[in-house]
Amino acid sequence: MELWYTEKHTNSVNFSLKVKEHLFSGQSEFQKLDVLDTYEYGKLMTLDGLVMVTEKDEFVYHDMIVHVPMAVNPNIKKVLVIGGGDGGTVRELMRYEHIEHVDMVEIDKLVCDAAKEFFPTISCELENPRVNLLYEDGVKFVEDSKDNTYDLIIIDSTDPIGPGEGLFTTAFYKNCFRILKEDGILVNQNESVFYHDTKEAALKANSKLRKIFPIVKVYQACIPTYPSGYWLFGFASKKYDPVKDLNAEKWNSLNIKTKYYNTDLHVGSFALPNFVKEFFENGTI
Amino acid sequence: MELWYTEKHTNSVNFSLKVKEHLFSGQSEFQKLDVLDTYEYGKLMTLDGLVMVTEKDEFVYHDMIVHVPMAVNPNIKKVLVIGGGDGGTVRELMRYEHIEHVDMVEIDKLVCDAAKEFFPTISCELENPRVNLLYEDGVKFVEDSKDNTYDLIIIDSTDPIGPGEGLFTTAFYKNCFRILKEDGILVNQNESVFYHDTKEAALKANSKLRKIFPIVKVYQACIPTYPSGYWLFGFASKKYDPVKDLNAEKWNSLNIKTKYYNTDLHVGSFALPNFVKEFFENGTI
Repeated sequence: MELWYTEKHTNSVNFSLKVKEHLFSGQSEFQKLDVLDTYEYGKLMTLDGLVMVTEKDEFVYHDMIVHVPMAVNPNIKKVLVIGGGDGGTVRELMRYEHIEHVDMVEIDKLVCDAAKEFFPTISCELENPRVNLLYEDGVKFVEDSKDNTYDLIIIDSTDPIGPGEGLFTTAFYKNCFRILKEDGILVNQNESVFYHDTKEAALKANSKLRKIFPIVKVYQACIPTYPSGYWLFGFASKKYDPVKDLNAEKWNSLNIKTKYYNTDLHVGSFALPNFVKEFFENGTI
Repeated sequence: MELWYTEKHTNSVNFSLKVKEHLFSGQSEFQKLDVLDTYEYGKLMTLDGLVMVTEKDEFVYHDMIVHVPMAVNPNIKKVLVIGGGDGGTVRELMRYEHIEHVDMVEIDKLVCDAAKEFFPTISCELENPRVNLLYEDGVKFVEDSKDNTYDLIIIDSTDPIGPGEGLFTTAFYKNCFRILKEDGILVNQNESVFYHDTKEAALKANSKLRKIFPIVKVYQACIPTYPSGYWLFGFASKKYDPVKDLNAEKWNSLNIKTKYYNTDLHVGSFALPNFVKEFFENGTI
Protein backbone atom coordinates (compact mmCIF):
# COMPACT_ATOMS: atom_id res chain seq x y z
CA MET A 1 0.00 0.00 0.00
CA GLU A 2 1.20 3.52 -0.80
CA LEU A 3 0.09 6.38 1.41
CA TRP A 4 0.17 9.92 -0.01
CA TYR A 5 -0.68 13.26 1.57
CA THR A 6 -2.02 15.92 -0.81
CA GLU A 7 -2.34 19.63 -0.14
CA LYS A 8 -4.45 21.63 -2.55
CA HIS A 9 -2.29 24.71 -3.15
CA THR A 10 -5.18 25.98 -5.25
CA ASN A 11 -8.24 24.24 -6.66
CA SER A 12 -6.12 23.24 -9.64
CA VAL A 13 -2.66 22.73 -8.09
CA ASN A 14 -1.92 19.73 -5.87
CA PHE A 15 1.27 19.10 -3.93
CA SER A 16 1.64 15.49 -2.77
CA LEU A 17 4.12 13.75 -0.51
CA LYS A 18 4.57 10.02 -0.06
CA VAL A 19 4.00 9.08 3.55
CA LYS A 20 5.83 6.50 5.65
CA GLU A 21 3.42 6.70 8.54
CA HIS A 22 0.51 8.75 9.82
CA LEU A 23 1.82 9.29 13.33
CA PHE A 24 -0.89 11.36 14.95
CA SER A 25 -4.29 12.86 14.38
CA GLY A 26 -6.02 15.09 16.90
CA GLN A 27 -8.75 17.68 17.09
CA SER A 28 -8.55 20.66 19.44
CA GLU A 29 -11.30 23.20 19.95
CA PHE A 30 -9.56 25.31 17.25
CA GLN A 31 -8.35 22.99 14.52
CA LYS A 32 -7.43 19.52 13.35
CA LEU A 33 -3.78 18.58 13.75
CA ASP A 34 -1.99 15.73 11.98
CA VAL A 35 1.59 14.53 12.07
CA LEU A 36 2.92 12.58 9.11
CA ASP A 37 6.30 11.02 8.54
CA THR A 38 7.19 11.58 4.86
CA TYR A 39 10.01 10.24 2.72
CA GLU A 40 11.26 13.56 1.34
CA TYR A 41 10.48 16.12 4.05
CA GLY A 42 10.77 14.02 7.21
CA LYS A 43 8.07 14.58 9.78
CA LEU A 44 5.55 17.29 9.06
CA MET A 45 2.66 18.87 10.93
CA THR A 46 -0.56 19.95 9.25
CA LEU A 47 -3.31 22.15 10.69
CA ASP A 48 -6.69 21.67 9.06
CA GLY A 49 -4.90 19.77 6.28
CA LEU A 50 -2.31 22.46 5.42
CA VAL A 51 1.42 21.99 5.98
CA MET A 52 2.68 24.21 8.78
CA VAL A 53 6.14 22.85 9.34
CA THR A 54 8.37 20.07 8.01
CA GLU A 55 11.67 18.84 9.42
CA LYS A 56 13.43 19.36 6.09
CA ASP A 57 12.58 22.97 5.22
CA GLU A 58 11.57 24.59 8.53
CA PHE A 59 15.02 26.18 8.82
CA VAL A 60 14.22 28.60 6.00
CA TYR A 61 11.07 29.96 7.62
CA HIS A 62 12.45 30.19 11.15
CA ASP A 63 15.75 31.76 10.09
CA MET A 64 13.94 34.43 8.12
CA ILE A 65 11.25 35.31 10.64
CA VAL A 66 13.78 35.68 13.49
CA HIS A 67 17.23 36.70 12.27
CA VAL A 68 16.08 39.49 9.96
CA PRO A 69 14.68 41.70 12.76
CA MET A 70 17.40 40.60 15.20
CA ALA A 71 20.13 41.79 12.82
CA VAL A 72 18.46 45.18 12.37
CA ASN A 73 18.23 46.01 16.07
CA PRO A 74 20.97 44.34 18.12
CA ASN A 75 19.41 45.63 21.35
CA ILE A 76 16.24 43.57 21.27
CA LYS A 77 15.63 42.26 24.78
CA LYS A 78 11.90 41.70 25.12
CA VAL A 79 10.00 39.77 22.46
CA LEU A 80 6.39 38.75 21.94
CA VAL A 81 5.71 35.73 19.71
CA ILE A 82 2.11 35.21 18.61
CA GLY A 83 1.48 31.67 17.43
CA GLY A 84 4.61 29.69 16.64
CA GLY A 85 3.44 26.68 18.63
CA ASP A 86 5.91 24.33 17.00
CA GLY A 87 8.69 26.19 18.83
CA GLY A 88 10.98 26.95 15.88
CA THR A 89 10.74 30.71 16.30
CA VAL A 90 11.54 30.51 20.00
CA ARG A 91 14.41 28.12 19.29
CA GLU A 92 16.06 30.70 17.03
CA LEU A 93 15.37 33.55 19.47
CA MET A 94 17.03 31.64 22.33
CA ARG A 95 20.32 31.70 20.41
CA TYR A 96 20.64 35.38 21.34
CA GLU A 97 22.03 35.63 24.85
CA HIS A 98 20.99 39.28 25.07
CA ILE A 99 17.29 38.43 24.74
CA GLU A 100 15.99 38.62 28.28
CA HIS A 101 12.39 37.53 27.95
CA VAL A 102 9.99 36.08 25.40
CA ASP A 103 6.23 35.97 25.87
CA MET A 104 4.92 33.31 23.53
CA VAL A 105 1.16 33.28 23.07
CA GLU A 106 -0.12 30.17 21.30
CA ILE A 107 -3.88 29.74 21.20
CA ASP A 108 -3.75 25.97 20.81
CA LYS A 109 -1.94 23.87 23.41
CA LEU A 110 -2.28 20.84 21.14
CA VAL A 111 0.24 22.38 18.71
CA CYS A 112 2.89 22.66 21.43
CA ASP A 113 2.11 19.21 22.81
CA ALA A 114 2.45 17.63 19.36
CA ALA A 115 5.64 19.60 18.69
CA LYS A 116 7.15 18.41 21.98
CA GLU A 117 6.26 14.79 21.23
CA PHE A 118 7.09 14.56 17.52
CA PHE A 119 9.43 17.47 16.67
CA PRO A 120 12.09 17.61 19.40
CA THR A 121 14.59 19.41 17.14
CA ILE A 122 12.07 22.22 16.63
CA SER A 123 10.39 22.46 20.03
CA CYS A 124 13.63 22.10 22.03
CA GLU A 125 13.58 25.58 23.59
CA LEU A 126 9.92 25.82 24.58
CA GLU A 127 10.86 25.05 28.20
CA ASN A 128 13.69 27.60 28.33
CA PRO A 129 13.29 29.71 31.50
CA ARG A 130 13.51 32.89 29.39
CA VAL A 131 10.31 31.80 27.61
CA ASN A 132 6.91 32.47 29.16
CA LEU A 133 4.57 30.16 27.22
CA LEU A 134 0.91 31.12 27.44
CA TYR A 135 -1.98 29.23 25.87
CA GLU A 136 -4.16 32.22 25.10
CA ASP A 137 -5.75 34.13 22.26
CA GLY A 138 -3.12 36.47 20.78
CA VAL A 139 -5.75 39.05 19.87
CA LYS A 140 -6.90 39.29 23.48
CA PHE A 141 -3.32 39.21 24.77
CA VAL A 142 -2.24 42.29 22.81
CA GLU A 143 -5.44 44.11 23.81
CA ASP A 144 -4.58 43.58 27.45
CA SER A 145 -0.86 44.37 27.17
CA LYS A 146 0.63 47.64 28.37
CA ASP A 147 1.91 50.36 26.05
CA ASN A 148 5.59 50.43 25.17
CA THR A 149 6.44 46.90 26.32
CA TYR A 150 8.15 44.95 23.51
CA ASP A 151 11.17 45.51 21.29
CA LEU A 152 9.93 42.95 18.76
CA ILE A 153 6.66 41.21 17.94
CA ILE A 154 6.77 38.13 15.69
CA ILE A 155 3.45 36.99 14.26
CA ASP A 156 4.09 33.36 13.43
CA SER A 157 0.54 32.56 12.43
CA THR A 158 -1.46 30.24 10.22
CA ASP A 159 -3.23 31.64 7.17
CA PRO A 160 -6.00 34.19 7.78
CA ILE A 161 -8.69 31.49 7.83
CA GLY A 162 -9.75 29.81 11.06
CA PRO A 163 -7.93 30.63 14.31
CA GLY A 164 -5.38 32.87 12.53
CA GLU A 165 -7.98 35.28 11.16
CA GLY A 166 -7.86 37.82 14.01
CA LEU A 167 -4.08 38.12 13.56
CA PHE A 168 -4.57 39.83 10.18
CA THR A 169 -6.90 42.64 11.34
CA THR A 170 -6.31 46.37 11.69
CA ALA A 171 -7.41 46.33 15.34
CA PHE A 172 -4.80 43.68 16.12
CA TYR A 173 -2.00 45.53 14.31
CA LYS A 174 -2.94 48.77 16.13
CA ASN A 175 -2.52 47.06 19.45
CA CYS A 176 0.81 45.63 18.31
CA PHE A 177 1.95 49.15 17.41
CA ARG A 178 0.81 50.45 20.81
CA ILE A 179 2.59 47.79 22.86
CA LEU A 180 5.84 48.06 20.89
CA LYS A 181 8.54 50.37 22.19
CA GLU A 182 9.38 53.54 20.26
CA ASP A 183 11.93 51.66 18.14
CA GLY A 184 9.84 48.49 17.95
CA ILE A 185 9.66 46.07 15.04
CA LEU A 186 6.85 43.74 13.97
CA VAL A 187 7.50 40.80 11.66
CA ASN A 188 4.78 38.56 10.26
CA GLN A 189 4.41 35.69 7.84
CA ASN A 190 2.87 37.55 4.92
CA GLU A 191 1.63 34.80 2.56
CA SER A 192 2.61 34.81 -1.12
CA VAL A 193 1.73 36.25 -4.51
CA PHE A 194 1.66 33.50 -7.16
CA TYR A 195 -1.82 32.18 -6.31
CA HIS A 196 -5.03 34.10 -5.88
CA ASP A 197 -5.95 33.31 -2.27
CA THR A 198 -2.56 33.88 -0.68
CA LYS A 199 -2.06 36.95 -2.90
CA GLU A 200 -5.22 38.56 -1.59
CA ALA A 201 -4.19 37.80 1.99
CA ALA A 202 -0.68 39.16 1.39
CA LEU A 203 -1.95 42.47 0.05
CA LYS A 204 -4.54 42.91 2.77
CA ALA A 205 -2.02 42.35 5.55
CA ASN A 206 0.48 44.70 3.92
CA SER A 207 -2.10 47.46 3.29
CA LYS A 208 -3.27 47.40 6.88
CA LEU A 209 0.25 47.55 8.29
CA ARG A 210 1.09 50.48 6.02
CA LYS A 211 -1.72 52.52 7.56
CA ILE A 212 -0.25 52.05 11.02
CA PHE A 213 3.56 51.78 10.80
CA PRO A 214 5.80 54.43 9.19
CA ILE A 215 8.11 51.79 7.67
CA VAL A 216 6.60 48.68 6.06
CA LYS A 217 8.61 46.37 3.79
CA VAL A 218 8.15 42.90 2.38
CA TYR A 219 10.87 40.27 2.15
CA GLN A 220 11.08 36.88 0.50
CA ALA A 221 12.34 33.34 0.90
CA CYS A 222 12.05 30.02 -0.91
CA ILE A 223 10.11 27.49 1.17
CA PRO A 224 9.41 24.42 -0.99
CA THR A 225 6.42 23.05 0.93
CA TYR A 226 4.48 26.32 0.97
CA PRO A 227 2.23 27.14 -2.01
CA SER A 228 4.37 28.12 -5.03
CA GLY A 229 7.57 27.75 -2.97
CA TYR A 230 7.91 31.54 -2.87
CA TRP A 231 6.97 33.01 0.49
CA LEU A 232 6.83 36.52 1.90
CA PHE A 233 7.33 38.10 5.28
CA GLY A 234 6.28 41.55 6.42
CA PHE A 235 8.63 43.91 8.26
CA ALA A 236 6.80 46.80 9.97
CA SER A 237 8.81 49.21 12.04
CA LYS A 238 8.57 52.47 13.97
CA LYS A 239 12.15 53.59 13.40
CA TYR A 240 14.51 51.12 11.73
CA ASP A 241 14.72 50.49 8.02
CA PRO A 242 15.44 46.78 7.49
CA VAL A 243 18.16 47.36 4.89
CA LYS A 244 19.68 50.76 5.72
CA ASP A 245 19.81 49.93 9.42
CA LEU A 246 21.03 46.36 9.06
CA ASN A 247 23.90 46.00 11.51
CA ALA A 248 25.80 43.29 9.63
CA GLU A 249 29.07 43.69 11.49
CA LYS A 250 27.40 43.38 14.87
CA TRP A 251 25.28 40.40 13.83
CA ASN A 252 28.25 38.57 12.34
CA SER A 253 30.23 39.18 15.53
CA LEU A 254 27.63 37.12 17.43
CA ASN A 255 28.80 34.00 15.54
CA ILE A 256 25.34 32.51 15.28
CA LYS A 257 25.58 29.59 12.88
CA THR A 258 22.59 29.51 10.53
CA LYS A 259 21.66 27.18 7.71
CA TYR A 260 19.77 29.73 5.59
CA TYR A 261 20.26 33.28 6.87
CA ASN A 262 23.27 35.50 6.36
CA THR A 263 23.56 39.27 6.19
CA ASP A 264 24.09 39.39 2.40
CA LEU A 265 20.98 37.29 1.93
CA HIS A 266 19.21 39.65 4.37
CA VAL A 267 19.74 42.52 1.92
CA GLY A 268 18.86 40.31 -1.04
CA SER A 269 15.64 39.15 0.57
CA PHE A 270 14.29 42.72 0.35
CA ALA A 271 15.22 43.01 -3.36
CA LEU A 272 11.84 41.97 -4.72
CA PRO A 273 10.97 41.04 -8.30
CA ASN A 274 9.29 43.86 -10.22
CA PHE A 275 5.91 42.15 -10.33
CA VAL A 276 5.90 41.80 -6.54
CA LYS A 277 6.93 45.42 -5.97
CA GLU A 278 4.26 46.60 -8.38
CA PHE A 279 1.65 44.39 -6.75
CA PHE A 280 2.26 45.91 -3.34
CA GLU A 281 2.55 49.45 -4.72
CA ASN A 282 -0.48 49.44 -7.00
CA GLY A 283 -2.58 46.42 -6.07
CA THR A 284 -6.00 47.11 -4.64
CA ILE A 285 -8.59 44.72 -3.29
CA MET B 1 -14.20 14.16 -16.08
CA GLU B 2 -11.20 15.79 -14.42
CA LEU B 3 -7.85 15.69 -16.18
CA TRP B 4 -4.69 16.16 -14.11
CA TYR B 5 -1.04 16.28 -15.12
CA THR B 6 1.44 15.02 -12.52
CA GLU B 7 5.19 15.54 -12.50
CA LYS B 8 7.19 13.42 -10.11
CA HIS B 9 9.58 15.96 -8.60
CA THR B 10 11.12 13.01 -6.77
CA ASN B 11 9.90 9.45 -6.22
CA SER B 12 8.01 10.72 -3.21
CA VAL B 13 7.00 14.27 -4.25
CA ASN B 14 4.29 14.85 -6.86
CA PHE B 15 3.30 18.19 -8.35
CA SER B 16 -0.08 18.09 -10.13
CA LEU B 17 -1.95 20.59 -12.26
CA LYS B 18 -5.56 20.41 -13.35
CA VAL B 19 -5.77 20.37 -17.12
CA LYS B 20 -8.34 22.06 -19.35
CA GLU B 21 -7.16 20.34 -22.50
CA HIS B 22 -4.36 18.16 -23.80
CA LEU B 23 -3.56 20.21 -26.90
CA PHE B 24 -0.70 18.30 -28.48
CA SER B 25 1.39 15.19 -28.17
CA GLY B 26 4.31 14.43 -30.44
CA GLN B 27 7.43 12.34 -30.55
CA SER B 28 10.63 13.51 -32.22
CA GLU B 29 13.76 11.45 -32.65
CA PHE B 30 14.98 13.00 -29.39
CA GLN B 31 12.07 13.20 -26.99
CA LYS B 32 8.33 13.22 -26.37
CA LEU B 33 6.69 16.63 -26.38
CA ASP B 34 3.28 17.48 -24.94
CA VAL B 35 1.34 20.73 -24.70
CA LEU B 36 -1.30 21.06 -21.99
CA ASP B 37 -3.62 23.92 -21.21
CA THR B 38 -3.86 24.17 -17.41
CA TYR B 39 -6.11 26.23 -15.14
CA GLU B 40 -3.41 27.79 -12.97
CA TYR B 41 -0.35 28.04 -15.22
CA GLY B 42 -1.93 28.53 -18.64
CA LYS B 43 -0.39 26.53 -21.44
CA LEU B 44 2.66 24.47 -20.61
CA MET B 45 5.11 22.34 -22.57
CA THR B 46 6.58 19.12 -21.25
CA LEU B 47 9.53 17.17 -22.65
CA ASP B 48 9.56 13.50 -21.68
CA GLY B 49 6.89 14.33 -19.11
CA LEU B 50 8.78 17.15 -17.33
CA VAL B 51 7.61 20.78 -17.36
CA MET B 52 9.92 22.95 -19.45
CA VAL B 53 7.92 26.13 -19.72
CA THR B 54 4.55 27.51 -18.62
CA GLU B 55 2.87 30.72 -19.70
CA LYS B 56 2.47 31.86 -16.10
CA ASP B 57 5.97 31.57 -14.69
CA GLU B 58 8.28 31.52 -17.76
CA PHE B 59 9.10 35.20 -17.18
CA VAL B 60 11.16 34.34 -14.11
CA TYR B 61 13.41 31.89 -15.90
CA HIS B 62 13.88 33.93 -19.06
CA ASP B 63 14.52 37.19 -17.21
CA MET B 64 17.16 35.57 -15.07
CA ILE B 65 19.00 33.64 -17.77
CA VAL B 66 19.25 36.70 -20.06
CA HIS B 67 19.28 39.99 -18.14
CA VAL B 68 21.86 38.94 -15.54
CA PRO B 69 24.74 38.56 -18.04
CA MET B 70 23.47 41.45 -20.19
CA ALA B 71 23.64 43.83 -17.22
CA VAL B 72 27.20 42.77 -16.38
CA ASN B 73 28.63 43.43 -19.83
CA PRO B 74 26.77 46.16 -21.75
CA ASN B 75 28.86 45.50 -24.87
CA ILE B 76 27.54 42.05 -25.68
CA LYS B 77 26.97 41.91 -29.43
CA LYS B 78 27.28 38.27 -30.45
CA VAL B 79 25.43 35.57 -28.54
CA LEU B 80 25.16 31.79 -28.79
CA VAL B 81 22.05 30.13 -27.33
CA ILE B 82 22.17 26.36 -26.93
CA GLY B 83 18.70 24.86 -26.56
CA GLY B 84 16.00 27.35 -25.69
CA GLY B 85 13.67 26.06 -28.40
CA ASP B 86 10.59 27.68 -26.88
CA GLY B 87 12.07 31.04 -27.85
CA GLY B 88 11.83 32.82 -24.49
CA THR B 89 15.58 33.39 -24.21
CA VAL B 90 15.79 34.83 -27.70
CA ARG B 91 12.73 37.00 -27.03
CA GLU B 92 14.51 38.65 -24.08
CA LEU B 93 17.81 38.98 -26.01
CA MET B 94 16.04 40.77 -28.88
CA ARG B 95 15.08 43.57 -26.49
CA TYR B 96 18.70 44.77 -26.64
CA GLU B 97 19.20 46.83 -29.76
CA HIS B 98 22.97 46.56 -29.44
CA ILE B 99 22.90 42.77 -29.85
CA GLU B 100 23.93 42.24 -33.47
CA HIS B 101 23.61 38.51 -33.91
CA VAL B 102 22.35 35.43 -32.11
CA ASP B 103 23.14 31.88 -33.15
CA MET B 104 20.49 29.67 -31.63
CA VAL B 105 21.21 25.96 -31.77
CA GLU B 106 18.23 23.79 -30.87
CA ILE B 107 18.63 20.07 -31.44
CA ASP B 108 14.90 19.41 -31.77
CA LYS B 109 12.88 21.27 -34.42
CA LEU B 110 9.68 19.93 -32.87
CA VAL B 111 10.25 22.18 -29.82
CA CYS B 112 10.36 25.31 -31.98
CA ASP B 113 7.42 24.18 -34.09
CA ALA B 114 5.28 23.53 -31.02
CA ALA B 115 6.36 26.84 -29.50
CA LYS B 116 5.41 28.72 -32.66
CA GLU B 117 2.02 27.05 -32.78
CA PHE B 118 1.01 27.07 -29.11
CA PHE B 119 3.17 29.71 -27.36
CA PRO B 120 3.15 32.83 -29.55
CA THR B 121 3.98 35.14 -26.61
CA ILE B 122 7.15 33.14 -25.97
CA SER B 123 8.29 32.23 -29.50
CA CYS B 124 7.56 35.67 -30.98
CA GLU B 125 11.17 36.58 -31.84
CA LEU B 126 12.35 33.28 -33.33
CA GLU B 127 11.97 34.75 -36.82
CA ASN B 128 13.84 37.95 -36.00
CA PRO B 129 16.46 38.59 -38.72
CA ARG B 130 19.13 39.01 -36.03
CA VAL B 131 18.49 35.36 -35.02
CA ASN B 132 20.13 32.52 -36.92
CA LEU B 133 18.14 29.47 -35.87
CA LEU B 134 19.89 26.14 -36.46
CA TYR B 135 18.46 22.69 -35.78
CA GLU B 136 21.70 21.00 -34.79
CA ASP B 137 23.42 19.29 -31.91
CA GLY B 138 24.87 21.98 -29.63
CA VAL B 139 27.78 19.75 -28.65
CA LYS B 140 28.84 19.37 -32.28
CA PHE B 141 28.19 23.08 -32.98
CA VAL B 142 30.61 24.30 -30.31
CA GLU B 143 33.22 21.74 -31.42
CA ASP B 144 33.09 23.20 -34.92
CA SER B 145 33.00 26.88 -33.90
CA LYS B 146 36.01 29.15 -34.19
CA ASP B 147 37.98 30.45 -31.21
CA ASN B 148 37.12 33.85 -29.79
CA THR B 149 33.70 34.22 -31.45
CA TYR B 150 31.00 34.96 -28.84
CA ASP B 151 30.50 37.54 -26.10
CA LEU B 152 27.92 35.39 -24.36
CA ILE B 153 26.83 31.74 -24.41
CA ILE B 154 23.50 30.84 -22.81
CA ILE B 155 22.90 27.14 -22.17
CA ASP B 156 19.14 26.93 -21.95
CA SER B 157 18.98 23.16 -21.70
CA THR B 158 16.83 20.39 -20.32
CA ASP B 159 18.09 18.34 -17.38
CA PRO B 160 21.25 16.26 -17.92
CA ILE B 161 19.24 13.19 -18.91
CA GLY B 162 18.38 12.48 -22.53
CA PRO B 163 19.28 15.01 -25.23
CA GLY B 164 20.59 17.56 -22.67
CA GLU B 165 23.27 15.21 -21.28
CA GLY B 166 26.12 16.36 -23.53
CA LEU B 167 25.53 19.98 -22.45
CA PHE B 168 26.74 19.16 -18.93
CA THR B 169 30.15 17.66 -19.86
CA THR B 170 33.66 19.00 -19.39
CA ALA B 171 34.44 18.65 -23.10
CA PHE B 172 31.45 20.81 -23.97
CA TYR B 173 32.32 23.49 -21.42
CA LYS B 174 35.93 23.56 -22.68
CA ASN B 175 34.72 24.28 -26.19
CA CYS B 176 32.45 27.00 -24.83
CA PHE B 177 35.45 28.59 -23.11
CA ARG B 178 37.46 28.40 -26.29
CA ILE B 179 34.85 30.00 -28.54
CA LEU B 180 34.09 32.79 -26.05
CA LYS B 181 35.92 36.09 -26.45
CA GLU B 182 38.47 37.12 -23.84
CA ASP B 183 35.79 38.83 -21.76
CA GLY B 184 33.18 36.17 -22.51
CA ILE B 185 30.40 34.99 -20.17
CA LEU B 186 28.62 31.63 -20.04
CA VAL B 187 25.29 31.26 -18.27
CA ASN B 188 23.50 27.94 -17.77
CA GLN B 189 20.44 26.59 -16.04
CA ASN B 190 22.09 24.90 -13.10
CA GLU B 191 19.36 22.73 -11.55
CA SER B 192 18.58 22.95 -7.84
CA VAL B 193 19.61 21.73 -4.39
CA PHE B 194 16.57 20.64 -2.37
CA TYR B 195 16.19 17.21 -4.00
CA HIS B 196 18.82 14.54 -4.54
CA ASP B 197 18.82 14.21 -8.34
CA THR B 198 18.88 17.90 -9.25
CA LYS B 199 21.37 18.51 -6.43
CA GLU B 200 23.82 16.03 -7.86
CA ALA B 201 23.43 17.57 -11.33
CA ALA B 202 23.87 21.10 -9.94
CA LEU B 203 27.12 20.24 -8.19
CA LYS B 204 28.56 18.33 -11.15
CA ALA B 205 27.89 21.21 -13.55
CA ASN B 206 29.36 23.74 -11.14
CA SER B 207 32.47 21.65 -10.39
CA LYS B 208 33.23 21.20 -14.07
CA LEU B 209 32.82 24.90 -14.84
CA ARG B 210 35.11 25.81 -11.93
CA LYS B 211 37.92 23.79 -13.47
CA ILE B 212 37.69 25.80 -16.68
CA PHE B 213 36.57 29.36 -15.93
CA PRO B 214 38.38 31.69 -13.51
CA ILE B 215 35.10 33.15 -12.18
CA VAL B 216 32.18 30.80 -11.47
CA LYS B 217 29.18 31.86 -9.39
CA VAL B 218 25.69 30.50 -8.77
CA TYR B 219 22.53 32.58 -8.62
CA GLN B 220 18.97 31.83 -7.66
CA ALA B 221 15.35 32.45 -8.53
CA CYS B 222 11.93 31.20 -7.47
CA ILE B 223 10.24 29.25 -10.27
CA PRO B 224 7.09 27.59 -8.89
CA THR B 225 6.73 24.82 -11.50
CA TYR B 226 10.32 23.57 -11.21
CA PRO B 227 11.12 20.98 -8.52
CA SER B 228 11.13 22.63 -5.06
CA GLY B 229 10.39 26.04 -6.63
CA TYR B 230 13.99 27.10 -5.93
CA TRP B 231 16.13 27.12 -9.05
CA LEU B 232 19.76 27.92 -9.76
CA PHE B 233 21.72 29.37 -12.65
CA GLY B 234 25.45 29.21 -13.24
CA PHE B 235 27.50 32.28 -14.20
CA ALA B 236 30.95 31.39 -15.57
CA SER B 237 33.15 34.18 -16.80
CA LYS B 238 36.64 34.95 -18.07
CA LYS B 239 36.85 38.49 -16.74
CA TYR B 240 33.68 39.96 -15.25
CA ASP B 241 32.45 39.34 -11.73
CA PRO B 242 28.64 39.22 -11.83
CA VAL B 243 28.20 41.45 -8.77
CA LYS B 244 31.28 43.71 -8.67
CA ASP B 245 31.03 44.40 -12.39
CA LEU B 246 27.27 44.83 -12.55
CA ASN B 247 26.68 48.01 -14.55
CA ALA B 248 23.36 48.96 -12.95
CA GLU B 249 23.32 52.54 -14.16
CA LYS B 250 23.90 51.53 -17.75
CA TRP B 251 21.33 48.73 -17.65
CA ASN B 252 18.70 50.97 -16.09
CA SER B 253 19.36 53.59 -18.77
CA LEU B 254 18.23 51.07 -21.41
CA ASN B 255 14.67 51.25 -19.99
CA ILE B 256 13.95 47.58 -20.57
CA LYS B 257 10.72 46.81 -18.77
CA THR B 258 10.93 43.46 -16.99
CA LYS B 259 8.44 41.58 -14.85
CA TYR B 260 10.97 39.82 -12.61
CA TYR B 261 14.49 41.20 -13.08
CA ASN B 262 15.88 44.43 -11.69
CA THR B 263 19.42 45.38 -10.74
CA ASP B 264 18.82 45.19 -6.96
CA LEU B 265 17.42 41.69 -7.42
CA HIS B 266 20.47 40.91 -9.59
CA VAL B 267 22.73 41.48 -6.59
CA GLY B 268 20.32 39.66 -4.28
CA SER B 269 20.16 36.64 -6.58
CA PHE B 270 23.87 35.98 -5.88
CA ALA B 271 23.36 36.20 -2.09
CA LEU B 272 22.88 32.50 -1.51
CA PRO B 273 21.62 30.79 1.64
CA ASN B 274 24.39 29.34 3.80
CA PHE B 275 23.47 25.73 3.05
CA VAL B 276 23.74 26.39 -0.70
CA LYS B 277 27.08 28.18 -0.38
CA GLU B 278 28.41 25.34 1.76
CA PHE B 279 27.12 22.74 -0.66
CA PHE B 280 29.00 24.28 -3.59
CA GLU B 281 32.12 24.97 -1.50
CA ASN B 282 32.42 21.61 0.22
CA GLY B 283 30.16 19.16 -1.59
CA THR B 284 31.83 16.37 -3.45
CA ILE B 285 30.36 13.72 -5.70
